[in-house]
Amino acid sequence: MPDCAFEPRNPDFEAATRDSFARQGLMRHLGVEIADIAPGFVELQVPFEENLTQQHGHFHGGVMGAIADRAAGYAAFTLAPPGSDVVSVEYKINMTAPGDGDRLVARGTVKRAGRTLIVTGADVFAETGGVQTLCATVLQTIMVLPENEKRRSG
Amino acid sequence: MPDCAFEPRNPDFEAATRDSFARQGLMRHLGVEIADIAPGFVELQVPFEENLTQQHGHFHGGVMGAIADRAAGYAAFTLAPPGSDVVSVEYKINMTAPGDGDRLVARGTVKRAGRTLIVTGADVFAETGGVQTLCATVLQTIMVLPENEKRRSG
Amino acid sequence: MPDCAFEPRNPDFEAATRDSFARQGLMRHLGVEIADIAPGFVELQVPFEENLTQQHGHFHGGVMGAIADRAAGYAAFTLAPPGSDVVSVEYKINMTAPGDGDRLVARGTVKRAGRTLIVTGADVFAETGGVQTLCATVLQTIMVLPENEKRRSG
Amino acid sequence: MPDCAFEPRNPDFEAATRDSFARQGLMRHLGVEIADIAPGFVELQVPFEENLTQQHGHFHGGVMGAIADRAAGYAAFTLAPPGSDVVSVEYKINMTAPGDGDRLVARGTVKRAGRTLIVTGADVFAETGGVQTLCATVLQTIMVLPENEKRRSG
Repeated sequence: MPDCAFEPRNPDFEAATRDSFARQGLMRHLGVEIADIAPGFVELQVPFEENLTQQHGHFHGGVMGAIADRAAGYAAFTLAPPGSDVVSVEYKINMTAPGDGDRLVARGTVKRAGRTLIVTGADVFAETGGVQTLCATVLQTIMVLPENEKRRSG
Repeated sequence: MPDCAFEPRNPDFEAATRDSFARQGLMRHLGVEIADIAPGFVELQVPFEENLTQQHGHFHGGVMGAIADRAAGYAAFTLAPPGSDVVSVEYKINMTAPGDGDRLVARGTVKRAGRTLIVTGADVFAETGGVQTLCATVLQTIMVLPENEKRRSG
Repeated sequence: MPDCAFEPRNPDFEAATRDSFARQGLMRHLGVEIADIAPGFVELQVPFEENLTQQHGHFHGGVMGAIADRAAGYAAFTLAPPGSDVVSVEYKINMTAPGDGDRLVARGTVKRAGRTLIVTGADVFAETGGVQTLCATVLQTIMVLPENEKRRSG
Repeated sequence: MPDCAFEPRNPDFEAATRDSFARQGLMRHLGVEIADIAPGFVELQVPFEENLTQQHGHFHGGVMGAIADRAAGYAAFTLAPPGSDVVSVEYKINMTAPGDGDRLVARGTVKRAGRTLIVTGADVFAETGGVQTLCATVLQTIMVLPENEKRRSG
């Protein structure tokens, strides 16, 4: 959960977030699910399967990156005005441990919400038998696209 | 192709790279293929499919991140000693354009090869009708794991 | 202060940190001082002066970057073995607000301490009349150099 | 020099760049000078002095970061419309070698110039006896502030 409360500008932020997430073919292909949504906070999870592995049979870093990016990005999206969209400008990810577990959990939070740019972060944990180990941490920049600019930039 | 020639320490670097890549379940699941390998250089490509999309039907940023990380990481791997492995310590990715194309191409290169750490980069292009547009650029740190440390850290 | 307690491997970590810091000509030139040291945690501060400004008269981003890098780097150094040194492998900094204040404060913490690599973070605050505003946040990778490798890499 | 030619939107981009640079107290305090300016390209240099050192007597990483950030940022500024300003949203820096030399040289280039965001890069070299060694490389995001928004965000 986020450190401090954010006031969402879109009263339907949860439905908007679930709707956008549901249209991402990659999230479905990887088996990623939304675990929790709050203003400025999104938690994603993905159960282990062979299709998500690197060469040693653990979760692939590409999966960690993808869910960290989306957890943080959708955390920003919960604070965006109705009708707007968000895009990832950039992010940086540190891998801190192998992705060795039954599932991955990514918690995305908003660090600072500006009008145009939102700075976010995410931590990714590998969970085995209920114990979570930090395996990646992300620092990200999100850009808000007002409704009339979505066609151009989307 | 890289700016300057690197001398690989593993004469079988190409076979070792293809072998490691083939054991990554995620790369197969996403449909990623090796397009080219040279010392300090790896090019990957992935054809478009619905399973790889974000909410507007373009390639998902998670796919850009995954192939950029692997193109750059395997570029480092081509320079690693026989029997060693490499892990991504961290990377930073800037998204510069939507992933709108028939396929994505990621070119990974080595910027500086140290004994323990290798600094790499990758550019990702979205290709439509033979025209390539830069859609992401990555700066990455790779750590070389000598053969006797692989069990511990892999 | 850090979220969780770290056990320093060097009982004289505080003296070693102050000694290394005192030998950095740049920190003296910028007027940076150590405000606090604990295992896995270092706080630095620098009072405002004209020599530290950007074009609008606020603290320059270069000062934010320099003190964030050192606060996080010395946070890692507090956990390094006696006689070893640390170097910044890389860091990423997000600027979240102008550096408008009487002084800057940077708090560096350790996120994960490995044997060779330490992942750290730092937040930089601009303070005016006792009120602190987050103006930059950093995610960093530090490498520990054992005593016998310092000459080669330092 | 940049890979490809950029068309500056401000015919007086060079004077505007020199004027903004001259108002940065920190650049003067560190002894940084402009070595070259072209559309989408800025080269900075700083001669060695004791005030710029880390604990082993080499150039401090904080100097590398400061001049890399400014070389890349002013490279973006050369392409900004007349009367606008630019701010660093974020950057990531990899240190690739000690800053051991008579001077540091930073070359900043534009990778992609958008309307609101400009992605840039910079390489920093330590020069001794005319030989330059890459000691840091940067990937950066710059935001363009139109003239009417400068007061609010500067």
